Amino acid sequence: MSLINQFLKSDIKAINVGTDIFSKSMSDQEVETLNIEWTPPRTKNDEMLAALNKLYSEEINEANQIAMNRFFEAEPLLVDVAKAIDVIPNMTPYTILQAGPPIEWDHMCGPMKGAIIGLVLFEGFAKTPEEAIEFVESGKITFAPCHDYGAVGPMAGVISASMYVHVVKNVKHGNMSFCPLTEGSRAKVLRFGAYDEDVIENFRWVHGELAETLHKVLSGSNGIDLRSMISQALHMGDECHNRNKAGSSLFMKELFPLLVRAQLEEDVFMRVLNNLNTNDHYFLSLSMPALKASLDAAHGVKNSTIVTALSRNGVDFGIRVSGCEGNVWFTGPSQFVEGLYLPGFSKEDANLDMGDSAITEAGGVGGFALSGAPAIVQFVGGNSEDCLVITKKMYEITFAENSNFSMPNLDFRGGPSGIDVRKVLETGILPIITTGIAHKNAGVGFIGAGITNAPIECFEKAVLELANRI
Amino acid sequence: MSLINQFLKSDIKAINVGTDIFSKSMSDQEVETLNIEWTPPRTKNDEMLAALNKLYSEEINEANQIAMNRFFEAEPLLVDVAKAIDVIPNMTPYTILQAGPPIEWDHMCGPMKGAIIGLVLFEGFAKTPEEAIEFVESGKITFAPCHDYGAVGPMAGVISASMYVHVVKNVKHGNMSFCPLTEGSRAKVLRFGAYDEDVIENFRWVHGELAETLHKVLSGSNGIDLRSMISQALHMGDECHNRNKAGSSLFMKELFPLLVRAQLEEDVFMRVLNNLNTNDHYFLSLSMPALKASLDAAHGVKNSTIVTALSRNGVDFGIRVSGCEGNVWFTGPSQFVEGLYLPGFSKEDANLDMGDSAITEAGGVGGFALSGAPAIVQFVGGNSEDCLVITKKMYEITFAENSNFSMPNLDFRGGPSGIDVRKVLETGILPIITTGIAHKNAGVGFIGAGITNAPIECFEKAVLELANRI
Repeated sequence: MSLINQFLKSDIKAINVGTDIFSKSMSDQEVETLNIEWTPPRTKNDEMLAALNKLYSEEINEANQIAMNRFFEAEPLLVDVAKAIDVIPNMTPYTILQAGPPIEWDHMCGPMKGAIIGLVLFEGFAKTPEEAIEFVESGKITFAPCHDYGAVGPMAGVISASMYVHVVKNVKHGNMSFCPLTEGSRAKVLRFGAYDEDVIENFRWVHGELAETLHKVLSGSNGIDLRSMISQALHMGDECHNRNKAGSSLFMKELFPLLVRAQLEEDVFMRVLNNLNTNDHYFLSLSMPALKASLDAAHGVKNSTIVTALSRNGVDFGIRVSGCEGNVWFTGPSQFVEGLYLPGFSKEDANLDMGDSAITEAGGVGGFALSGAPAIVQFVGGNSEDCLVITKKMYEITFAENSNFSMPNLDFRGGPSGIDVRKVLETGILPIITTGIAHKNAGVGFIGAGITNAPIECFEKAVLELANRI
Repeated sequence: MSLINQFLKSDIKAINVGTDIFSKSMSDQEVETLNIEWTPPRTKNDEMLAALNKLYSEEINEANQIAMNRFFEAEPLLVDVAKAIDVIPNMTPYTILQAGPPIEWDHMCGPMKGAIIGLVLFEGFAKTPEEAIEFVESGKITFAPCHDYGAVGPMAGVISASMYVHVVKNVKHGNMSFCPLTEGSRAKVLRFGAYDEDVIENFRWVHGELAETLHKVLSGSNGIDLRSMISQALHMGDECHNRNKAGSSLFMKELFPLLVRAQLEEDVFMRVLNNLNTNDHYFLSLSMPALKASLDAAHGVKNSTIVTALSRNGVDFGIRVSGCEGNVWFTGPSQFVEGLYLPGFSKEDANLDMGDSAITEAGGVGGFALSGAPAIVQFVGGNSEDCLVITKKMYEITFAENSNFSMPNLDFRGGPSGIDVRKVLETGILPIITTGIAHKNAGVGFIGAGITNAPIECFEKAVLELANRI
């Protein structure tokens, strides 16, 4: 039995008897299927059912359609690479943004603490990791979620003032989003919690020569259309979360002519090219802000039950819902990630699910688009049939189908799009997420990748609050 | 009913009752399945059965294994772009190579004549199309198949002395292959039979500035590994015959650093980049010689029944078989191509199947690898399920599975590889080919793309000759 089947199997008791498609999918997978009655997993049964009932109305469907139209119409362009403090509103020299819902230093997981230690060293606030911890514990740093500042960051997701970020503008609605430059193709990286000298040296180069070159190249451009690039990549074996080989290649093809026109010195050109060209995951740091800018356009539609962010800080999983405007989070526990590990590591070493990168699933790609990305099983485990099963399952918890993001292996059906908190509770099917795995201790880094899901608690809380607001 | 289903349906009467898998595939496709007894399509029934029986032996299986091992072990690298007369053995200033088996000028189809008129103008042997025809009819040009000179050319497949070709070396076995530079992303191109002034002007630039730049860049390189690129592209939605978007992107990523190091003038660099970057079919002119060099390594193994080339000149379809060493062709009629047309064109305008590009199917990609390239149906017609059905069908007529070219949507099963003439006759299943469609008249060009098959006659003749040689 494949890894994903194991994962699905552990999920069986949540099946609603009404969900024939899922039940059939399980049978097709030769997984023993239990057609049991649905028992709500929590004790708030009556309260939850009453809230759910209140949310099934024409008014709410209309609100959801408005939210989805705003998402579908969004046109996210990469317009610049710039220093965080120069472009992210309300950023200060002592702000550090982090992945997921709000969290205090004392409660952070190891890899997030490791990444913050690295940033304190990078910003020059301390000279050793010990000094960095003292500096943070003295209260000099203000922590806040990336999402609350219009940004998204993969894994620890940390952003400090001197870091450079991709600047994405949704030219349809005018809003901006931001995502840090990525550190190249290597396992020991700051965003996974590593902070040794080699990591910091590479980080300085990325946020130095590489960033300045990209700023020079992009700031004078007309912008690069990221939605079109996601559309194409989905027909080329990517799901745009953990498989980004096609998207990264397409991006490089767009960037080459701009690099040539910038008349760089040959050695600079070659260093930049070597970093970008060897990183098959580069495109994640573009798909994320593209979907953040698009989902932010869909956020704040009164009464809408559409999820506009899925995010985790390695301890808590948080979601944002369109109908609850502003920075309102509904949280539950971050989940364990079933996956494949680098040699020398095992699940004993794994941190829980972490990062803002689940913005991709909120945007209908990542785990939702696995059907078109069978080669991802080489990275996260499972087999190619699992990929079809999972995407088909996600249609049961989404409000719409996105013709911009069509599924080649499902005969170009529009991808499952717009997670509807009502449907998650009704079916008991949880959003599925592909993700990287960080070592649970600060200082180690990337150790594997796999598949997990969002916890039910987030959706329960959102349903109660939405019902309360009607 | 989809276009591919129509195509498959017309094929039903050839089903052997023994082929359960194919029969099931048809039922899965909701195609009415006729389980009739197999009636050999020709009158040579007894002779053919006797010949087939003679070819089922351990000796022949061993010969086929040797041929396949040579194919699998081949390591084709792109090592240069050079002028045809400088690198293709036995080429003369008055030689014009053409696609497919041998053919005389008088019997050539319209687009092949158009391409030759274009080349006579390009070589400066004539100043007008009328003069070009006179020049050819005076007997000054020697025609020969590309294949007989170690070369392959898409569509008309023409190669003249001053054209530049991709030079591929199989570094494992030492043999070389050649394929013309491609003309960029445009419908009116010489290889599809167009020859107006604009076509010739573009052709001169391709075989001038572009070719010289690529020669400068590649001749000093260590070579570019094409087998690895095909492997990767097959996991990225390409089948490496009519979908080459991923392969072309991967090639650009390899080429770009070489272009930077060559210190080109900026305007030259930009013209070259613009041509290469906008051509999603570029990689076909690399997958073709890569597979030609690999299949030539497998050619000439005594008694082997493995097909080492499928090729068509627009009138005749020819195959080469490993057990018949040298330039021995087995021919049948070129087939009609079922497909999709550019606006303003229809099947009335279509030439029959043409080009050496079916070397890709002989090498186990193209139509054989459709399972991983669902997005190709947007170009050639059909639906995504057809793609799976066709690849599964091709396993029935191939000798081996190629782990280098694995099929992502079939859970990474090695691709169907090594067409066995015995199995084609035994099952009545014909090799399926994806292909471009040229207008039947000289001077027009590309009008569509679709799917066709090799004719049974080639395989019958090969079986008789192989049996004869034992």
